[in-house]
Amino acid sequence: MLMPEPDRDSLAKRERIVEALRAIVPGEGVIASQDELRAYECDGLSAYRAVPMAVVLPSTTGQVAEILKLCNEERIKVVPRGAGTSLSGGALPLEDGIVLGLGKFNRILDIDYENRTVTAQPGVTNLGITKAVEDAGFYYAPDPSSQIACSIGGNVAENSGGVHCLKYGLTTNNLLGVEMVLPNGDVLRLGGKHLDSEAYDLLGIMTGSEGLLGVVTEVTVRILPKPETARAVLVGFPSNEQGGDCVASIIAAGIIPGGLEMMDRPAIHAAEAFCQPGYPMDVEALLICELDGPAAEVDHLIETVTSIARQHGATFVKASQSEEERQKFWLGRKAAFPAVGRISPDYYCMDGTIPRAQLSHVLRRMQEMSEEFGLRVANVFHAGDGNLHPLILFDANKPGELERAEEFGSAILRLCVEVGGVLTGEHGVGVEKRDLMPEMFTEDDLNQQQRLKCAFDPAQILNPGKVFPRLHRCAELGRMHIHRGQIPFPDLPRF
Amino acid sequence: MLMPEPDRDSLAKRERIVEALRAIVPGEGVIASQDELRAYECDGLSAYRAVPMAVVLPSTTGQVAEILKLCNEERIKVVPRGAGTSLSGGALPLEDGIVLGLGKFNRILDIDYENRTVTAQPGVTNLGITKAVEDAGFYYAPDPSSQIACSIGGNVAENSGGVHCLKYGLTTNNLLGVEMVLPNGDVLRLGGKHLDSEAYDLLGIMTGSEGLLGVVTEVTVRILPKPETARAVLVGFPSNEQGGDCVASIIAAGIIPGGLEMMDRPAIHAAEAFCQPGYPMDVEALLICELDGPAAEVDHLIETVTSIARQHGATFVKASQSEEERQKFWLGRKAAFPAVGRISPDYYCMDGTIPRAQLSHVLRRMQEMSEEFGLRVANVFHAGDGNLHPLILFDANKPGELERAEEFGSAILRLCVEVGGVLTGEHGVGVEKRDLMPEMFTEDDLNQQQRLKCAFDPAQILNPGKVFPRLHRCAELGRMHIHRGQIPFPDLPRF
Repeated sequence: MLMPEPDRDSLAKRERIVEALRAIVPGEGVIASQDELRAYECDGLSAYRAVPMAVVLPSTTGQVAEILKLCNEERIKVVPRGAGTSLSGGALPLEDGIVLGLGKFNRILDIDYENRTVTAQPGVTNLGITKAVEDAGFYYAPDPSSQIACSIGGNVAENSGGVHCLKYGLTTNNLLGVEMVLPNGDVLRLGGKHLDSEAYDLLGIMTGSEGLLGVVTEVTVRILPKPETARAVLVGFPSNEQGGDCVASIIAAGIIPGGLEMMDRPAIHAAEAFCQPGYPMDVEALLICELDGPAAEVDHLIETVTSIARQHGATFVKASQSEEERQKFWLGRKAAFPAVGRISPDYYCMDGTIPRAQLSHVLRRMQEMSEEFGLRVANVFHAGDGNLHPLILFDANKPGELERAEEFGSAILRLCVEVGGVLTGEHGVGVEKRDLMPEMFTEDDLNQQQRLKCAFDPAQILNPGKVFPRLHRCAELGRMHIHRGQIPFPDLPRF
Repeated sequence: MLMPEPDRDSLAKRERIVEALRAIVPGEGVIASQDELRAYECDGLSAYRAVPMAVVLPSTTGQVAEILKLCNEERIKVVPRGAGTSLSGGALPLEDGIVLGLGKFNRILDIDYENRTVTAQPGVTNLGITKAVEDAGFYYAPDPSSQIACSIGGNVAENSGGVHCLKYGLTTNNLLGVEMVLPNGDVLRLGGKHLDSEAYDLLGIMTGSEGLLGVVTEVTVRILPKPETARAVLVGFPSNEQGGDCVASIIAAGIIPGGLEMMDRPAIHAAEAFCQPGYPMDVEALLICELDGPAAEVDHLIETVTSIARQHGATFVKASQSEEERQKFWLGRKAAFPAVGRISPDYYCMDGTIPRAQLSHVLRRMQEMSEEFGLRVANVFHAGDGNLHPLILFDANKPGELERAEEFGSAILRLCVEVGGVLTGEHGVGVEKRDLMPEMFTEDDLNQQQRLKCAFDPAQILNPGKVFPRLHRCAELGRMHIHRGQIPFPDLPRF
């Protein structure tokens, strides 16, 4: 019996696809050599790696449409990629798929101060938007830590946040329109410079869809005037619970700070040792609360926040007296991840969100879990949003510690869901949290999510294996709709 | 040849459905007598009327699920209805369908000040949410004019706004979660008290879906603290253009007023004659600009707005000096529709949205069109949002005037789209603007909208004939995806 030769077949198919891609994007727009492909083997979540079949770097919407049509017809998987800074594996390549890189889409197309909008190609960096308008006194509010490098298109895919999203919202709250391409090559324009659009909110559904529904080729965002003044207050507490309760009280009092971050003792000590921001060393929890707006309002709010903090037993309160001091207060927070990296050989950064009122309960449970798992945990997080970033400290060289860290991480995310929260705040689901989705969603929920996917991408070529733990063929989902629950999970392309 | 007797057949089917509905909702929960059905024959857009087959008034989510499953299996059309105050015919019954009224879902389920949320059943009125929390100093921001009567579930279906949505957003910006039922009876919980959820944003897509995707059975919204101070400024201009330019400049200066409304000369005169709010009679355009926040900030902003207004040639500026005066300034704006009703036998209220920078251009074009069509127009609108509400004045008793008014209205909406705006601001598409959708959307856009509909409601039982001018069977859309443009429009259930 003649055995099939899968390698030769797949090599031939790969060559044919690469040729077809070169016909669409001539010149250096297609990368196919193993050496060069390696540059694309992972995103910011470096635990997972895979070398794609090819990377294609189009520079026009027409090219993107042709590439997607080709891949749709040939059933070639496509992983869209911005700057590759994502932290949950959303831009991780698939070995039997191509990477569609948007790096050449790097121009700002329109700045409109009257409508307070910027229209940019998706490869423009997040900070690039602010840089383009800051001389006129404006900025783009969502500010992920990776803002120097991350792309605005990637921000749309992940619905990125940042320290200012408590007051100014996530990407979805600052996004006004996109141009996008469907897998069948149709080009859609969603939203625009106006307030709202009729018909179903396709713009909303694209935001945070992690590259599974279409490829964004143009982005219009709202820009905001820089606040007149910004001041930060450091507040220290003898316990995490008091810090958590204070956060809930500040929000309940109707104050919406520009940023409201919290660090626990291990994070405070690591940050102080790393860059000396002037944090108190004798507290268990530290809040950094930034107030922005007209100077008179900021002064008033600082008084109110101080008074709330004292009621919750704060033992340290210090407001910044200059722009330099404000920057210094933030320096420790922003350097907290590398700082923790110096006190532990390895750390595993989680990302979950809980109702604010559950903060102190969850922090206490996390301490108990830390003892149960025998691993330290440092907390640095967007407290105002209830968006936790626990850093689990471990040593990959000690047998079993990596596995224990992963189990601890899963237990934390399950706890988030248990108290009414969600599995992610701003890092996305990607591959990292994919298998935890059934903790959060019922089978009915996941089936409805899949039906929606099928409405955009019936052949499921876009980023398969990300976000959702199981893939149904779209035709089966249709049948399941009538005889629901009767179709066994085919458990197709996992990886 | 024996002719079929459709009447007897459809009567028998109707009786069978009514019986089945009574088995699900016992007692007085099913209305089937012609007299009582007439109370449901229209919504706030009274130009269209239809008596439904039956009205069912469930009081539990389980009943809603059973009703939808029954109708899905029997292919009975379902029109969901809140308070029936919608202005574009979204809740208009279908003669061959039932109305699913949510009036018995009238309880507030949870008030949570720490998380700043209210969870309510969908039949609770918009104002009912604020009433439930105002003693604690909070309110729910979106405030449609119908807020005494309109339901929060209807607000979700229409993505309702109000005079405060410039600063505080539409329903979609204040909605945190819903429980909803799909046509197949699946119950989904979308969102919750937390910031954001992973997976596709089904909550966003439900908001403003005008009852076409599912039935909402529980709503969680964000509440806000009442601002410390609110003051309103009246600003009068010798021309509409100056008023429009001033609006654009206020926003471009980075000020986000709590409300920013504009009225033109016919509206000003009608309002002043109706309730004497103290408006200037010698101006062509009047802005009402409300500033809210801490007192010091409000005073500062009033100075800035006044200075911008003077630069644009304002001939009248007056800031409210007391809460009574502020209320009086708003009285004329809020009474503008009935006031215009006194100066013209009939009027036709349009609802379109444009980029703010286009305000003065569109107002000028509308004046020219007023002369072309030989009909007066009064403008009262959410200027800050670019959301126009032109009132076309006509006399239905004069032959041809109604038709001319409708043509004028369509011409205005086409103008909105032409300058980069959209067909609606906050009133929805419903039946009123359904046939204008192709002005705004390409065939590719509309096909994608329909695919999304099929992911929720493959049998298309929910509110068919609303929003979209053409309905494809879902199976045909699938085929069209491959041989696109080849399937002729079947033009199924229009009405």
